[in-house]
Amino acid sequence: MIKKTNPSLKDVAAAAGVSVTTVSRLVNGSLDLPYHTKKRIEDAIKSLNYRPNPHARRLSMGRSDTIGLVVPEIANPFFSTLVAAVEQAADERKLAVSLHATLNRAGREIEYLQLIERNHVDGLIFITNHPDDGALASLINRSGKVIIVDEDVPGSKAPKLFCDNDHGGYLAGLHLAEHGHSHVLFIGGDERMISARRRFDGLMRALHERHGDKAKVDRYAGEYTIDYGRKAAVRYLEERHEATAIFASSDEIAIGLIEVFKDRNVSVPNDVSIIGFDDVGPLHLFAPPLTVIRQPVRQLGRRALELLLETNWQEWKPSASEELLPVEIVVRNSVAPPAK
Amino acid sequence: MIKKTNPSLKDVAAAAGVSVTTVSRLVNGSLDLPYHTKKRIEDAIKSLNYRPNPHARRLSMGRSDTIGLVVPEIANPFFSTLVAAVEQAADERKLAVSLHATLNRAGREIEYLQLIERNHVDGLIFITNHPDDGALASLINRSGKVIIVDEDVPGSKAPKLFCDNDHGGYLAGLHLAEHGHSHVLFIGGDERMISARRRFDGLMRALHERHGDKAKVDRYAGEYTIDYGRKAAVRYLEERHEATAIFASSDEIAIGLIEVFKDRNVSVPNDVSIIGFDDVGPLHLFAPPLTVIRQPVRQLGRRALELLLETNWQEWKPSASEELLPVEIVVRNSVAPPAK
Repeated sequence: MIKKTNPSLKDVAAAAGVSVTTVSRLVNGSLDLPYHTKKRIEDAIKSLNYRPNPHARRLSMGRSDTIGLVVPEIANPFFSTLVAAVEQAADERKLAVSLHATLNRAGREIEYLQLIERNHVDGLIFITNHPDDGALASLINRSGKVIIVDEDVPGSKAPKLFCDNDHGGYLAGLHLAEHGHSHVLFIGGDERMISARRRFDGLMRALHERHGDKAKVDRYAGEYTIDYGRKAAVRYLEERHEATAIFASSDEIAIGLIEVFKDRNVSVPNDVSIIGFDDVGPLHLFAPPLTVIRQPVRQLGRRALELLLETNWQEWKPSASEELLPVEIVVRNSVAPPAK
Repeated sequence: MIKKTNPSLKDVAAAAGVSVTTVSRLVNGSLDLPYHTKKRIEDAIKSLNYRPNPHARRLSMGRSDTIGLVVPEIANPFFSTLVAAVEQAADERKLAVSLHATLNRAGREIEYLQLIERNHVDGLIFITNHPDDGALASLINRSGKVIIVDEDVPGSKAPKLFCDNDHGGYLAGLHLAEHGHSHVLFIGGDERMISARRRFDGLMRALHERHGDKAKVDRYAGEYTIDYGRKAAVRYLEERHEATAIFASSDEIAIGLIEVFKDRNVSVPNDVSIIGFDDVGPLHLFAPPLTVIRQPVRQLGRRALELLLETNWQEWKPSASEELLPVEIVVRNSVAPPAK
């Protein structure tokens, strides 16, 4: 076969014997294919030396060449890093980003969602961090061209992109169980939120697998903030809580916890083990360096923009499908066998 | 005169013998009045104990009820925290914020500055983080209604708000000098930027005051990023640099430095002392906790919004005046007497 200098998706599809759409979706990572199909496409890409051209893609949904991005708390490094990834990816496509921080309040969220209706942006990436009473979902369903990221808005009909929260909880639980912990305190968000529910469920499953009926998980629910982490630490100490390990479901919560434990000379991991979630901040420089479940925060941002740009909004049918990005465990020094 | 519990603008106007509109405009800073009129209104405000309701204030410059905020790197916690403070203050005044991250690139900055001209925002808070070739300054001068924050755009005629960089450098220098350091390495931004220049000058002055001719300051210049901090650390070690202390001119640079030193078993502060600048991240939880100059980052955000709303843009005359917010030193454990 003679190699063309600039092979197209069509060339790859022909060589692999599949449709252009299938190749496109594989290239964009949005489709799980049978192993052999995937292999055929990958071989074709390799032999043709095909390279997707990022600049060729263009948001063809509207005319502003600006996409909107709505986040709850911009001071939280998880969100600000996600935002930076969207901005970077948008820049590569010569799109502007109009960014809005809602302070996690429904009124402000609704105001910003209306930006789409006023045509200031062509589409929106939307992140909320509190349970919805239905108002958000109905506005999202009316607006269209919205990608929901990180936390669900139940009842909203939009493409959804989350990290694999359940597996994150499971990895944390497995690590704690392997160090001998059967009684764990989960500190995370409101249980109506899927991030909290799935992480909790995964944690529970791992502990039960390893410790059977001995497994026990308690729960403190609050905001993903340093301040809530501090309050939870004080409560844990004042209650003389018997859990030997804590799963802190965000960097911010972990920072608040560690601050209080340090002030009160509670040693991590000698007195209590901690495993965190996010790994966006400089947790590797802490004393001790924090063991965490790492979220693919930059990939979440990049992929959210891809979904917004690549969804065929004319043809898109509301579905329950959601895309999950993988998480991983980063083992450092904050988990040890229980003291008692 | 009997004081009413909640005097209104109308009461003030009646007492001063002027129209409600005149009082309102004075209170909002949008009208320059003859001295005696102003005095009469101010006296009436005082004697009636009138307090303007901040929620009643409204940006009356345009019609969008949206202010723009342009920052270089949103993933940098210094900027994301500043942004959060602006958002909070805007929310209290029922204003929306349209936020844009420029990736610190002139092209993207210019694009966002043009938002004002397209009337999408009523005014702009602008932060850049690289030297300007004159293009930004001329666009800012044409746009008007811009507040420049954190880093100067030389030649731009706009109200300017910075932290007291010179004093920050001086406090750092004094602390290092008092611990016996006379040879310090300054790691910060390009010397064409006032943040870098002023911090360097302040550092230099303090060391000279204490150590006279023995004082020596070397300089590595680069970006305010973790990556640059890592590179600077490697260079410091490979050059076997003789400075016994490092002034890292941002949290991000300090994080990069400490990462490399930790990997290579260089002990802080036994082998080298470090003092940081910003104190936005969780540096108090590091091993060792980092001594820093703390920027008033949230106040910078709040004050920037106030300046935007309270400047009388019709009357404002370009001037060289700038407002400086105070910094402070937070002493922790990363500075000790020199080893050698």
